[in-house]
Amino acid sequence: MRFDIVTLFPDFFSSTLSSGLLGKALEKQIAQVHLVNPRDFTTDKHHKVDDEPYGGGVGMLLKPEPIFAAVESLPALPRREVILMTPQGETLNQPLLKEFSTNYDQLVIICGHYEGVDERVLHLVTREVSLGDFVLTAGEIPALALINGVVRLLPGTVGKVESLKAESFETGLLDYPQYTRPADFRGWKVPEVLLSGNHGAIAQWRYEQQLQRTRDRRPDLLENRDDRIES
Amino acid sequence: MRFDIVTLFPDFFSSTLSSGLLGKALEKQIAQVHLVNPRDFTTDKHHKVDDEPYGGGVGMLLKPEPIFAAVESLPALPRREVILMTPQGETLNQPLLKEFSTNYDQLVIICGHYEGVDERVLHLVTREVSLGDFVLTAGEIPALALINGVVRLLPGTVGKVESLKAESFETGLLDYPQYTRPADFRGWKVPEVLLSGNHGAIAQWRYEQQLQRTRDRRPDLLENRDDRIES
Repeated sequence: MRFDIVTLFPDFFSSTLSSGLLGKALEKQIAQVHLVNPRDFTTDKHHKVDDEPYGGGVGMLLKPEPIFAAVESLPALPRREVILMTPQGETLNQPLLKEFSTNYDQLVIICGHYEGVDERVLHLVTREVSLGDFVLTAGEIPALALINGVVRLLPGTVGKVESLKAESFETGLLDYPQYTRPADFRGWKVPEVLLSGNHGAIAQWRYEQQLQRTRDRRPDLLENRDDRIES
Repeated sequence: MRFDIVTLFPDFFSSTLSSGLLGKALEKQIAQVHLVNPRDFTTDKHHKVDDEPYGGGVGMLLKPEPIFAAVESLPALPRREVILMTPQGETLNQPLLKEFSTNYDQLVIICGHYEGVDERVLHLVTREVSLGDFVLTAGEIPALALINGVVRLLPGTVGKVESLKAESFETGLLDYPQYTRPADFRGWKVPEVLLSGNHGAIAQWRYEQQLQRTRDRRPDLLENRDDRIES
């Protein structure tokens, strides 16, 4: 999988791409991340990437030309999506990450900045994605979240496929509580059932905990859930 | 505002905290970010921070002791929240960012890893926050999103207060389309009204665009919306 990040702040990414599971995945060539800076595609002597909005208003907008030039400078693999990270987009979720990880060879991700980008950039874009219902200063963090979530699903990144399957949003339920040693930590004990060795009872307890927790915290997930897990 | 990030990967953050608007805000001392590594608080010779889950299952869990020790090593300002970034938490949104930015002096943010953390860590935690309904390899990116979103709301970070107010999720509506020069880019023209100089007509057009776009893309936002903007 090839990622191209279109960003005015390529330096932002340097330490993030070498750390943790994502760093290892990039090292193993499971994915490649390329950075491209629209500022390198400006033609005026001040390398201007932003300008005032027509019709008035505070803040500056990203101009269309440098973004078009940056994206048009990239190679285009057969299955490519050009994504604009914007609060106006469809909300990122696990099915969308799965779709990106399986249906595409290349994801070009445009990071917005300032007050936004000129609307005509949408002529370049095949998908608008939002990290959630909140506003950040820029699109770099959302881009990083998307890349991490997609790379995590690529074969070879996470050791065991099973450890993906059991997780939140894969079953439509929140996770059950988990415990490790010590069995007693400051008087807080691990639930007896987990020490019992009774695998049936453990599975039952975990499922009940998942249902209970999802009911308490995220009843909306239960409503949307199909019957996959019962089968 | 003081942030303490409890992370096994402090190096992840180095390039992210010096770049863009967040970098400037930290430089201006509007906020301070401290990093603390639970691994520095292990007492065994292998500096072990994770262990197998009781009751079986794939993957490793973060042990409770190093996280407790790390958090307990921190100073505690009067108005402090200890946040665990986890898919089980309440979903991050703009009201939550606003609450964090106004009601607290210190946010301690614990980044989860691997399959999760020992449940007893919740005895330390005053708030569980989820970035959204998707799974990432670790809590560092969600922590970064939270910090960015909070710092952005602190006085002095963004030049003009007005430029915050008009944005997505502040009015309950998505943004209107914005345009900058050139007026004609590759045949795609800026809408006439924005060039008219008629401020009333521009405000009306923008409001209609906001409504239309929200109706098309996020009807759920319209349903939850109060009448603030009409006043």
